[in-house]
Amino acid sequence: MENEHEQSHFAMNAGDGPLSYLQNSSYQGGTLDVARLAIEEEIETKLEFSSEQTSICIADFGCSTGNNSFPAMHTIIEAIKRKHEFSYLKTLEFYVFFNDVAANDFNTLFRSLPPSRSYGVAAVPGDFHRRLLPPSSLHFAYASWSLHWLTEAPEAAADSGTPAWNGGEIVYTRERKEVCDAYLDQFGKDVVSFLKSRVVEMVDGGLIALLLPGAPAAWDPEKEYTMVSLVEPLRSSLVDMAMQGRVSEAKIDSFNIPYYFPTLRQLMEIIERNPSFTVEKIETINATGNYTFPSIHARIAFFRAAHEGMLAHHFGGEIIDDLFDQYEKKLGASPILKNVENDKTLVILAILKKNIRP
Amino acid sequence: MENEHEQSHFAMNAGDGPLSYLQNSSYQGGTLDVARLAIEEEIETKLEFSSEQTSICIADFGCSTGNNSFPAMHTIIEAIKRKHEFSYLKTLEFYVFFNDVAANDFNTLFRSLPPSRSYGVAAVPGDFHRRLLPPSSLHFAYASWSLHWLTEAPEAAADSGTPAWNGGEIVYTRERKEVCDAYLDQFGKDVVSFLKSRVVEMVDGGLIALLLPGAPAAWDPEKEYTMVSLVEPLRSSLVDMAMQGRVSEAKIDSFNIPYYFPTLRQLMEIIERNPSFTVEKIETINATGNYTFPSIHARIAFFRAAHEGMLAHHFGGEIIDDLFDQYEKKLGASPILKNVENDKTLVILAILKKNIRP
Repeated sequence: MENEHEQSHFAMNAGDGPLSYLQNSSYQGGTLDVARLAIEEEIETKLEFSSEQTSICIADFGCSTGNNSFPAMHTIIEAIKRKHEFSYLKTLEFYVFFNDVAANDFNTLFRSLPPSRSYGVAAVPGDFHRRLLPPSSLHFAYASWSLHWLTEAPEAAADSGTPAWNGGEIVYTRERKEVCDAYLDQFGKDVVSFLKSRVVEMVDGGLIALLLPGAPAAWDPEKEYTMVSLVEPLRSSLVDMAMQGRVSEAKIDSFNIPYYFPTLRQLMEIIERNPSFTVEKIETINATGNYTFPSIHARIAFFRAAHEGMLAHHFGGEIIDDLFDQYEKKLGASPILKNVENDKTLVILAILKKNIRP
Repeated sequence: MENEHEQSHFAMNAGDGPLSYLQNSSYQGGTLDVARLAIEEEIETKLEFSSEQTSICIADFGCSTGNNSFPAMHTIIEAIKRKHEFSYLKTLEFYVFFNDVAANDFNTLFRSLPPSRSYGVAAVPGDFHRRLLPPSSLHFAYASWSLHWLTEAPEAAADSGTPAWNGGEIVYTRERKEVCDAYLDQFGKDVVSFLKSRVVEMVDGGLIALLLPGAPAAWDPEKEYTMVSLVEPLRSSLVDMAMQGRVSEAKIDSFNIPYYFPTLRQLMEIIERNPSFTVEKIETINATGNYTFPSIHARIAFFRAAHEGMLAHHFGGEIIDDLFDQYEKKLGASPILKNVENDKTLVILAILKKNIRP
């Protein structure tokens, strides 16, 4: 229950203005549209809880300001209601726990709550890699676009030197594989911590739905890119600003974005380390689905709303506008990156069930 | 679960600046110092919960930005820990639900959380006269300086005409008793709604501690005043501003501050309408205790932090600075009101126990 004050740079952009996460994250919301049927089906066929239960608790781990969370919570609650419509006489009460780091803008979330919602609300601040909720209190855990954020960038990243960007492909000055392994290792530790905390908090027979960006096992860098590819032009923009004397090179060297995009196989292997959960479903959502960005500008606005806090924390807020101007020019100049249809980023949906203890 | 968006004017002043409730409400915090021993004693002797329990939930109804809430939650948790130190082998986990209206500044509360606290945290937005928490989930409910706020000013108040302030005593143009009765009636309804919601949420054997400002059965208006007496000079200041053409008289006529300060006997009678609770203790804390304001200026700052939202909502924010300048002059010019030692406002402490059903 400590440390949450240090996580302010992990918060998505606050408020509801033009640069807010609220206004720029419809992409994330779109992935729910693709995953909705699968989530409803798993609730229908797999979710179990005691017939004595009168209240059902759902938590969203990494809710941000709520705009993508509310439709997800609505989907989950309606599916549970439908399932129990005929099997129960008593009315179920629903409670949603909205979790994010303590620096998240919960005021905006509360102001945006759907007025006609059919559930009680609580905001739970803190790091979801730790315990947050009472034991055996949670029936459904949801984490969308949050589990890929690492608790910290691995040390190997800091030692890897500055990769160079030649406008089309990334050139690493040291061993790329070592860095990737360190990231995967950290990602694995973090997912293990997340699941370890949820084991205590969840009721037996409860479900977890995870939605997170992932990488394909392979893609053609001559024609295609993934979300990871968007980080290097950002670094390149920072290097340009260092040449103008506006940021220090030392700061660039020590800047590593703490997230990892796993392949489906990697995520599966990590989840299976926890014997309290069974993987009921794991699948990738095709990147050419209906959640593609309408333009590279929209993609950058989403990227900015998610990364601005972290960049401002590290480099100072005064460079941000110019940095993203520069960044947009750089992406626009790349024949591969400027076309959102070349984006091969996957979204992984995993649904786990907490095993029922005999 | 509706209506909370309309309650923004009930929120205490946000943030931690010089006009914030956080900076100006040490008076409220001081009343805890006086009540602490009684609360500890009731926990020691009266609180009951199942020995199977592994987590204890406490809620603060009307937490504002938390600065007065954190010491209260600490007091309650430490008292429960001491009580169970020797009777249990298993470790109890503690969870605190911080409740206030949805427009409350929960971001500031989360930023101010004590880093070394030993409890999990959730913020619960909404009107505490309705259901907010799952059934049988709550072990201790706390409401300090919140229950005197009414859900609405009674209609009779709007009909009562504008009372006149002659600098020393209040002259009502219509029947004062009728208005007082309407306020008491609304206060009674609201306390009944609060308790009705808590009956469902609390475990049998759980405790409620209420701290709220009250009125003595009688006081000498030639020499003394109570908190209610401070409302009329505010109205008088508004009338002055109406004469300058800065607010409309119609707005003043329709402005009624929605709170009521009961006598101990009135509060007792209202609580006893709910047979699910037993009054374990009810007492007034002497107004000359250690929670007196250091100066009339500090008293006005507290008043402003609590009322500014409501005044700005009704009259517009642009008049507030001048209104409080005017108000301070008016109090300073009154031989009775300028001296905080003449304040005979009481604070009532009531501790109720939810009866154990056979």
